[in-house]
Amino acid sequence: MELLFLGTGSGVPAKYRNVSSIALKLLDERNSVWLFDCGEATQHQILKTTIKPRKIDKIFITHLHGDHIFGLPGLLSSRAFQGGDTPVTIYGPKGIKQYVTMSLKLSQSHFKYAIRFEEFSNDTTLLEDDQFIVTTKKLKHGIPSFGFRIQEKDREGELNAEKLRELGVPFGPLFGQLKKGETVTLDNGLELNGKDFIGPKQKGRIITILGDTVKHPNSVELAQDADVLVHESTFSGEEQELAKNYNHSTNIDAAQTAKEANVSQLLLTHISARYLFAESKEIERKAQQVFQNTQLMHDFSVVDVPLKKD
Amino acid sequence: MELLFLGTGSGVPAKYRNVSSIALKLLDERNSVWLFDCGEATQHQILKTTIKPRKIDKIFITHLHGDHIFGLPGLLSSRAFQGGDTPVTIYGPKGIKQYVTMSLKLSQSHFKYAIRFEEFSNDTTLLEDDQFIVTTKKLKHGIPSFGFRIQEKDREGELNAEKLRELGVPFGPLFGQLKKGETVTLDNGLELNGKDFIGPKQKGRIITILGDTVKHPNSVELAQDADVLVHESTFSGEEQELAKNYNHSTNIDAAQTAKEANVSQLLLTHISARYLFAESKEIERKAQQVFQNTQLMHDFSVVDVPLKKD
Ligand SMILES: [Zn+2]
Ligand SMILES: [Zn+2]
Repeated sequence: MELLFLGTGSGVPAKYRNVSSIALKLLDERNSVWLFDCGEATQHQILKTTIKPRKIDKIFITHLHGDHIFGLPGLLSSRAFQGGDTPVTIYGPKGIKQYVTMSLKLSQSHFKYAIRFEEFSNDTTLLEDDQFIVTTKKLKHGIPSFGFRIQEKDREGELNAEKLRELGVPFGPLFGQLKKGETVTLDNGLELNGKDFIGPKQKGRIITILGDTVKHPNSVELAQDADVLVHESTFSGEEQELAKNYNHSTNIDAAQTAKEANVSQLLLTHISARYLFAESKEIERKAQQVFQNTQLMHDFSVVDVPLKKD
Repeated sequence: MELLFLGTGSGVPAKYRNVSSIALKLLDERNSVWLFDCGEATQHQILKTTIKPRKIDKIFITHLHGDHIFGLPGLLSSRAFQGGDTPVTIYGPKGIKQYVTMSLKLSQSHFKYAIRFEEFSNDTTLLEDDQFIVTTKKLKHGIPSFGFRIQEKDREGELNAEKLRELGVPFGPLFGQLKKGETVTLDNGLELNGKDFIGPKQKGRIITILGDTVKHPNSVELAQDADVLVHESTFSGEEQELAKNYNHSTNIDAAQTAKEANVSQLLLTHISARYLFAESKEIERKAQQVFQNTQLMHDFSVVDVPLKKD
């Protein structure tokens, strides 16, 4: 599980920061990539990575501002051109379906794969399967803007098959009983308790990715105990007034939310082009004074999210 | 007058060729820039040039395929963000207005400047003013696709003011009479014929920029005696069948059109990413065998179109 930041700028593309997009690489977990927002030229950024567009099977859109969606029709087209033939689901606020379908219809784009839309206007659960549950809550940004909590389900501990084979347990139904934690007796009279051979439960990871917003209680709820919180930081703490007027957050807002939500790690993105490199280091440093484990992201920053020891 | 190629690829962005866009820089002529097509990330390409988005006041769209229009909403947004406050006119096939207005409406983009649309479905004159006349004709590409002929008007020769002042002609109404080619008599009895002081007429330049198309008689009409013909060359001459099936041209189609139309110079663009650098040189060379003054364009190629001596 790895986060790859494809665009970390705000509003308009700049020389060193493209507009918003983040890839959540789930290659080990499900051989797929999920995309969060898709500003213009996201597909161009992807060209500079190892991501294969056809592996992107879910796209989550936080809000409909242009710097978060204008790359969507092009990415979907290139995905088709490069042989993508499996469905894509797009989750986004009401309006995203009209934007995508109209763009593809007027440009007479026809794909081999299906695009499914899951539009929402309120807090809801977007998907739940064996591995993940993804929920969304509304934030505050002038237009409907949402955050996502991607919660991996806890995994049962793994049976130590090697040890069992050493003890002469034949591969078959006995393994199943042991895996359930039952006690079994081997032909040679040896009694084995399954619980002794099951590793620790694997706690699921939690990643929270928020759309543009001012500081908001729902951010804290979405980020509660998360391993990683991705938070916008359009302005520096000195521009608190400006941030509020433009419905954005400062680095300090983000750090306070991280602290209140008791997350493990805070990643700042959506950085205004007005801040040069030295200033962005200062923005990071100031946030760290409020919440220590903070990092300010750059285009192509990679953050690994390892499995936790229980 | 200068052509700056912003994107010379075909279909999808590739590492060395972005999707279609060409800037016609008219800085000396009218302090403005005209854009022809606007594929995704055209604004990103512009960031690497000296072009100021606010100087772009006319955008011509050849056809609605995504690789020619998906950069339009983003470019217009950034133009607003960067202080653009003068109107823009977008000329394009029917549908372009719906695409742009819907994209801007759903993304809740509001600009200080007006966007005017001039949609067309047939051969027509798009604009005529003191300096230019721009006409369009339909080509053949599966969907409505058009070419543009940008014809600069001939300019009257300039009065040699320096010479007249040397001869003691006082600045004022006499200059006006001489400019009209009249004969005037100075206070000192000297007789001057205006025609002797007027430079040669300045022949207007003609630039023809075609949308995607198979070889077509309208291409020849649009390009007749042009200084520069910009023609797509998606496929090489060996792929004539493929080109026809996909409604595209080869380098040979383009060169034959250039020859038939008696143009001065042929510029090839819309090059498939399948052709690497060496192959593109070969495509250029083969076209030169049919029409000698041919150049194959790359992203950021610049072609000056100087004034002609009459
Ligand atoms: Zn926003
Ligand atoms: Zn086309």
